[in-house]
Amino acid sequence: MILYNCPPSGNCYKVRLFAALNGLELSVRDVDLAAAEQHQPWFAALNPWQKVPVLQDGDTVVWDSQAILVYLAERHQLWEWWPSEPAARARVAAWLSISGNEIQHGPADARLVRVFDAPLDYPNAVANAARTLGTLDKWLSLHPWLEGSRPTLAECAAYPYIALAPEGGITLDAYPAVRRWVAAVEALPGYVSVDA
Amino acid sequence: MILYNCPPSGNCYKVRLFAALNGLELSVRDVDLAAAEQHQPWFAALNPWQKVPVLQDGDTVVWDSQAILVYLAERHQLWEWWPSEPAARARVAAWLSISGNEIQHGPADARLVRVFDAPLDYPNAVANAARTLGTLDKWLSLHPWLEGSRPTLAECAAYPYIALAPEGGITLDAYPAVRRWVAAVEALPGYVSVDA
Repeated sequence: MILYNCPPSGNCYKVRLFAALNGLELSVRDVDLAAAEQHQPWFAALNPWQKVPVLQDGDTVVWDSQAILVYLAERHQLWEWWPSEPAARARVAAWLSISGNEIQHGPADARLVRVFDAPLDYPNAVANAARTLGTLDKWLSLHPWLEGSRPTLAECAAYPYIALAPEGGITLDAYPAVRRWVAAVEALPGYVSVDA
Repeated sequence: MILYNCPPSGNCYKVRLFAALNGLELSVRDVDLAAAEQHQPWFAALNPWQKVPVLQDGDTVVWDSQAILVYLAERHQLWEWWPSEPAARARVAAWLSISGNEIQHGPADARLVRVFDAPLDYPNAVANAARTLGTLDKWLSLHPWLEGSRPTLAECAAYPYIALAPEGGITLDAYPAVRRWVAAVEALPGYVSVDA
């Protein structure tokens, strides 16, 4: 399995983290975003949205970080990470949506501005991040994990850009339950950091 | 099953559309967003993000429009809409992500500004919509449906805010493949419009 990757991308890290936590072997191929390699025809043929990550498994191509998590869990029948009971599965899917929207357009966008000079609205990203982290902190003050009694795909999707929030100028100081949860993810066997 | 709903919301319409296409009975309860009912404690207890739609099925509560589609498909074993083969399922999941991010922050945000006076960046939403519709049009000029050879959850998630784009001041004139696909969704047996 080839992961088309960019080392500092939190979206690519979601996939590397899930693979590491489950001992899945990925052949990582870095795409040079600084040289706009993601817009070259060979890459656009893999992903019409011209973004990393993309996973290639034989003839199968999957793009979108959340979708790649679903693919890996389904392909390797990792039902403890992607519960088969409909309500639990749907609630994990809800956290995948939150990861791709509220978390992306809060802490992830703030980091894109600060670290990569992305032309995004920084005050807006900071305001979104505050709302998202506040809601997440309340949730995690009542629940050990995002869904149920153990980590799921929800953790792999949500953790990267929450843990990387300080790189975007967003401190987690005011969110003790979020910090407890970040530490719990980092204590999982097989955990790797973004720059591992 | 109770759907906490707002009639003009495209996100709520995703759920009503999928239910109609599959003959699922929903008991619709409208939440008065103009009176900020979604921020009242009883609703915040259902959905920490304080947004519609929310689905309640006995003791089960699911929030997020994409997640509710997953729940209904899993609960009613509608595998033709949510394929059980891992690669196809993951590719449907990718379109759920696109619906919650690229489509939401393109045509859906533009409509929020134009119709509901939302304090969002309209030129930014219009630019996002152009990128999203351009990519979608290329995809749909090569594929009959978003994934595979028949409609899936991808259609229920993506169609509403694409079809409603003109309400946000975004015409579909330049996107013939998108218009062909919109018409194909509208020809499905059981189809209902947003104001049905």
